[in-house]
Amino acid sequence: MDERVREHAEVLVDWSARVESGDDVLVSVSEGAHELAVAVAEALGERGANVVQLYSSAEASRAYLRAHPGDFEVGEHELALVENADVGLRLGASRNASATVDVNTATREASSKASEPVREAWRNLDYVSTLHPTRALAQQAEMSYEAYCDFVYDAILRDWEALAEEMAQMKDVLDAGSEVRVVVGDHTDVTMSIEGRTAVNSAASVAYNSSNLPSGEVFTAPYDTEGEVRFDVPMTFRGKQVRDVHLTFEDGEVVEYAAGVNEDVLGDILDTDDGARRLGELGIGMNPGIDRFTDNILFDEKMRDTVHMAVGRAYDANLPDGESGNDSAVHVDMIANVGENSRMEVDGEVVQRNGVFRWEDGFSAE
Amino acid sequence: MDERVREHAEVLVDWSARVESGDDVLVSVSEGAHELAVAVAEALGERGANVVQLYSSAEASRAYLRAHPGDFEVGEHELALVENADVGLRLGASRNASATVDVNTATREASSKASEPVREAWRNLDYVSTLHPTRALAQQAEMSYEAYCDFVYDAILRDWEALAEEMAQMKDVLDAGSEVRVVVGDHTDVTMSIEGRTAVNSAASVAYNSSNLPSGEVFTAPYDTEGEVRFDVPMTFRGKQVRDVHLTFEDGEVVEYAAGVNEDVLGDILDTDDGARRLGELGIGMNPGIDRFTDNILFDEKMRDTVHMAVGRAYDANLPDGESGNDSAVHVDMIANVGENSRMEVDGEVVQRNGVFRWEDGFSAE
Repeated sequence: MDERVREHAEVLVDWSARVESGDDVLVSVSEGAHELAVAVAEALGERGANVVQLYSSAEASRAYLRAHPGDFEVGEHELALVENADVGLRLGASRNASATVDVNTATREASSKASEPVREAWRNLDYVSTLHPTRALAQQAEMSYEAYCDFVYDAILRDWEALAEEMAQMKDVLDAGSEVRVVVGDHTDVTMSIEGRTAVNSAASVAYNSSNLPSGEVFTAPYDTEGEVRFDVPMTFRGKQVRDVHLTFEDGEVVEYAAGVNEDVLGDILDTDDGARRLGELGIGMNPGIDRFTDNILFDEKMRDTVHMAVGRAYDANLPDGESGNDSAVHVDMIANVGENSRMEVDGEVVQRNGVFRWEDGFSAE
Repeated sequence: MDERVREHAEVLVDWSARVESGDDVLVSVSEGAHELAVAVAEALGERGANVVQLYSSAEASRAYLRAHPGDFEVGEHELALVENADVGLRLGASRNASATVDVNTATREASSKASEPVREAWRNLDYVSTLHPTRALAQQAEMSYEAYCDFVYDAILRDWEALAEEMAQMKDVLDAGSEVRVVVGDHTDVTMSIEGRTAVNSAASVAYNSSNLPSGEVFTAPYDTEGEVRFDVPMTFRGKQVRDVHLTFEDGEVVEYAAGVNEDVLGDILDTDDGARRLGELGIGMNPGIDRFTDNILFDEKMRDTVHMAVGRAYDANLPDGESGNDSAVHVDMIANVGENSRMEVDGEVVQRNGVFRWEDGFSAE
């Protein structure tokens, strides 16, 4: 076994999920994640946790969904399993990113709607989602398998404590600020309010309200967005790649949209419901190990030198207690490069210029 | 996909487990069972069942057990899962029959003891255990993979209704009888009481009190065993193969034992507890598709032309309501060929001679 698989398992169990002796841990194992599942089992055994491993097979899901008559319901056994767990770990590892493309949309949506109580129960766990490299994922990233493995472990096996400290500076700026403005070239100039919202220092640990490994972003829930943005990093939605998205906001809502490729997919997203035309998230990518686009949102949105905005649902962690933010059935992240010819201002003060933060060498405010 | 995999899934779901719409089904998927898991997911989807798939990995178990400090406990989430299910399907498919041999016995036993409530909950389900052919299982059977697949599907894809009818004749004989005598060559002559016991017509379906696919045996719970038996079919116990077992019974108990190979393993079994020296089962193999030894008890004990006796625990299905039979922590089946030079008598009447049952062509009572 690649020693990095074992290190990955230890980061996941200790830093990310904070597993303790006696915890009831639920591990979802994707088709290609066997090796990581073995390493995670070893780490959980060492810590004296109680483990149930689920088999999460895209091919079995496809077969089940295509055969099902359509009146989906949640099994009591599944709900009882998740509701009685303490920790949930998802080991993603696709063997074919297109494994379920021939399940029709209505079936997919009906099944997804029925299983919302299960997803809700997962969100109530100390929950972390991670990824084990496969050849299919390397292919999606247009990389060799060996180079892709190096990329993945560079993003995951970091000094998270140090990164969390750096990101805390960004969180402090956002928590103290009222308005964010992002300007890139002559195509992006957008402002949004963040008054009263709390930023999440997403440092790949449940202790930081973060359920992704890797993470490495600071995000908040903006509102009252005005202006124009171009998202030049591609995004894949339901198996289709959308490129060069351009959105125009007025009074917090998308009033015009365009895309260079698959514009109809973008239209479908924005037409989902009222909340799908408003932003649910503004995130700043800060993981220095993620230095390229790999067509996987778990990594792409944490890329250094990018910011992302999601249309749709906001996260509770960003909102005052009891207050609800933008609501929607979707949450779709779109990413813009800010490495060149850009600045981000908070309340008129420049925080990042051309990808350099104000606490870094080489930063210039003017 | 081999069409037989799909047929296997249908036999399992319909004939064996009798799954109905809305059933909460738990499927345990071994490392090598992916293909069967997909076919089973399709069959369960068609029937509108609710499915949770568990990943049952011998390599992950080994890693977990070897790392664990030793104070095992059952997770509440695991117990809640099984107790809230209706149907349990185990898809066995070992990729390495020796995958866990380097887990020490004390650890294995401590873990097994702690998880008894989970096994008990599985037994309370409509529970069926089956097997998907792998190269490792073919190797254990000393067969090519192709020939092994043919063998497995010959045993599984049967006219179960017809076999159940034939086996019913054997059940009737045992239910009406008081004493069974088995004589083979000059080395086996053993009698046992079956008065008051009920035989199980194990026809690979929960509707027949059977939780094996394939099945094809009629078994009961004997007592007061007297005489000598030689078991000439090898058996593998905790990774060690025991050959040519010879047992002598007096007053229902083993008073002398010998084995040609690994006699100490046999001794360990018999020394487990008091019940390990008495019989818990007498079974008659009646599956005509199982015509050779493959070193896998799920198949071997159902071999046509064999009988088997298990030392240890008796099954409740054989006992009058509320009565407890032989009790033990073990249940170890040992198999004898009866194809030649043999007879089985019930209350003095010959029921099977040289492998031919009395309702078959070519049977001779004398």
